[in-house]
Amino acid sequence: MKSLLIVIDGMSDRILKSYGKTPLEMANIPNLDRMAKEGLCGILDVLGVGKRAGSDTAHLSLLGYDPYKFYTGRGPLEVAGAGIKLKEGDVSLRCNYATTDENFNLISRTAGQISEKEGTGELEKILNEIELPIDYEFKNSLGYRCVLHLRGSGLSGNVCDSEPKKEGMKINEVKPTEYSREAEFTSKIINKFINNSYKILKDHPINLKRAGEGKLPANIIVPRGAGETPELENFYEKWKLKGAVIAGIGLIKGLGYLTGMDVMHIPTATGYIDSDFMAKGKAAVNALKDHDFVLLHAESTDEPSHDKDVKGKITALERVDEMIGYLMENVSDTLIVVLADHTTSTDLGDHTADPTPIVLWGGNFIPDDVSKLTEKEMYKGGIHRIRGSDVMPLILDQINKTKKFGA
Amino acid sequence: MKSLLIVIDGMSDRILKSYGKTPLEMANIPNLDRMAKEGLCGILDVLGVGKRAGSDTAHLSLLGYDPYKFYTGRGPLEVAGAGIKLKEGDVSLRCNYATTDENFNLISRTAGQISEKEGTGELEKILNEIELPIDYEFKNSLGYRCVLHLRGSGLSGNVCDSEPKKEGMKINEVKPTEYSREAEFTSKIINKFINNSYKILKDHPINLKRAGEGKLPANIIVPRGAGETPELENFYEKWKLKGAVIAGIGLIKGLGYLTGMDVMHIPTATGYIDSDFMAKGKAAVNALKDHDFVLLHAESTDEPSHDKDVKGKITALERVDEMIGYLMENVSDTLIVVLADHTTSTDLGDHTADPTPIVLWGGNFIPDDVSKLTEKEMYKGGIHRIRGSDVMPLILDQINKTKKFGA
Repeated sequence: MKSLLIVIDGMSDRILKSYGKTPLEMANIPNLDRMAKEGLCGILDVLGVGKRAGSDTAHLSLLGYDPYKFYTGRGPLEVAGAGIKLKEGDVSLRCNYATTDENFNLISRTAGQISEKEGTGELEKILNEIELPIDYEFKNSLGYRCVLHLRGSGLSGNVCDSEPKKEGMKINEVKPTEYSREAEFTSKIINKFINNSYKILKDHPINLKRAGEGKLPANIIVPRGAGETPELENFYEKWKLKGAVIAGIGLIKGLGYLTGMDVMHIPTATGYIDSDFMAKGKAAVNALKDHDFVLLHAESTDEPSHDKDVKGKITALERVDEMIGYLMENVSDTLIVVLADHTTSTDLGDHTADPTPIVLWGGNFIPDDVSKLTEKEMYKGGIHRIRGSDVMPLILDQINKTKKFGA
Repeated sequence: MKSLLIVIDGMSDRILKSYGKTPLEMANIPNLDRMAKEGLCGILDVLGVGKRAGSDTAHLSLLGYDPYKFYTGRGPLEVAGAGIKLKEGDVSLRCNYATTDENFNLISRTAGQISEKEGTGELEKILNEIELPIDYEFKNSLGYRCVLHLRGSGLSGNVCDSEPKKEGMKINEVKPTEYSREAEFTSKIINKFINNSYKILKDHPINLKRAGEGKLPANIIVPRGAGETPELENFYEKWKLKGAVIAGIGLIKGLGYLTGMDVMHIPTATGYIDSDFMAKGKAAVNALKDHDFVLLHAESTDEPSHDKDVKGKITALERVDEMIGYLMENVSDTLIVVLADHTTSTDLGDHTADPTPIVLWGGNFIPDDVSKLTEKEMYKGGIHRIRGSDVMPLILDQINKTKKFGA
């Protein structure tokens, strides 16, 4: 028996003040409802009761890697997701192409949502030519997102973000968050990179052209989420399952690379509402042919939550539901597990610690009385309340690939 | 958003043999029922499944201080609650004014419920004049209750209680419970204090007067619950919440003082069924104006349980319910959490480890199908079953004052 773990990013919500309902209660999701009705349901504390998770720490926990032990920051996961190989002692950062004024006040944290079509390939190239006292690699990932990877010894991930909390504020000078020679050194390198990026980019022809078109220039690189390479046990060694990852965003791909899983390339998976869900669904069906475990990550439900866009979240849920329907029709002898990595409150525009729904479908378990997939229905699920670290053991047992402890 | 944690001491019960019901099932508690109906409910293992908690260890756990790490005995909490400042290395004991015969057989552990009106103020004064080889302070707390605080170095909390298990038994000579020079020394000091208290009190005019009135004399001080000063992190530092405590009994006030919270004085809160609940409710409403978190402790439900007084417990529950109604009407933008620190079986007259009800009300969560506040209804609550240490993280998440782990 195979297993398919579908993570619907930020799927669950709190009750929306203007609607008196949650997006899951308002969305038309017949396939998810059927799955909940036929399956075994419950609620899940991904990190623990009352603990608010990021997508990064949540996925570590769901795959069985204790984030309190193994999480070193978002940077390494993003850098790995961009296809860069990380070594022990390297320091990795996620970055944005951004727009600043001459006093380093942040005007746009995304350089007006600059995309690859708009010439960032050329910018990437020259951003690799800055003189730094260590080896480094700068790489574009998705849209305005990019990564910075510092290689070598004497580095530390204990440095602060350069991105300020809000647009309009000054870009932070990177400083150590602990006292050490390594953190001092690393801060200096990153600051040098930021300052040089501004020098290189401010009058670059691509930006002059953008200015002419009334667009914001991508005139600075703003790094954050610095972290050293985490030591993650190989997924196959850990669970004896051949695993594959299907995701649009770098973070999840990176986790796949770092744990030695096969990372599938779906060029049309964007992480947004326009993402090609069916392509992901098809890739999952395909991957299940020669893998025991497939992690399918759907990002598009979380973005509208952060943007406080209720209709966007509902639409995203309905798109994901179509993909779920396709998967239910097209897999066989496969346990499907659907859950969220965290709740995202569309009213707050941020993650909360409210437990997320978890649904098991297609396995040989005893179904409960849940009749549809909503936060409230999950309360009466047969699973009751479990933790993120319980998910992999639960899957292994359901597909009969776990070992008995004792005799 | 603010938060109000209401601990109804020993609220829950087992099914009473003579009634076939629990006190919560028999009491008329419309406000608590409404809270359960509108709120999110569940069951709570304050220390863990099957672990019987004292009020002291339970409150430590509820506030996020692991009692298995930080609990050093009841004494320090009671002494702090009497308004004495504790330093590292001090040893604190709770005591009773009691009645003994000349062979040290305990006649009354409360000296016939002697009260402050009956002259204990004068007795307190002379009990501070005993010659001991260290500094000490003796202080009255509530009614027959008093405290003894030993100051200085070379002391140990590892000594036994002087109070025997039952009236009629001989008062124990205090002895070390571990072999150490410090425990030997501390035992000697406490025994000297006890013996001298008898010498001073037995023929004291107040006691001669009591004898004339047919009352039991307060002719000895019986200490117990010795403990060294616990190292409790400041509540604000720990949770970034400005906290206040509203309680009648010293134990809970002491926990407030030891964690640096503001302890409110409600002179009419007695800890008994005659306690001024409305004064407490009003104090809570007031405290919420300039605090993020208020702990309101209602003691009066536990005392009748210990006395196997079913009607007393029901009356206490109904009085607390009136206060709950007042609070529901008079707070706004406040998460109210109602729970018990432990179950107290009125048939057994003691605490049990049966999980206690927990109800969240006033927050932005998805309500469940619980329709009233009874032990049985809680089984179907949406919270399912959580632990004492989960309560503070749950509150922080609901009032949106928690930090995300990860990105």
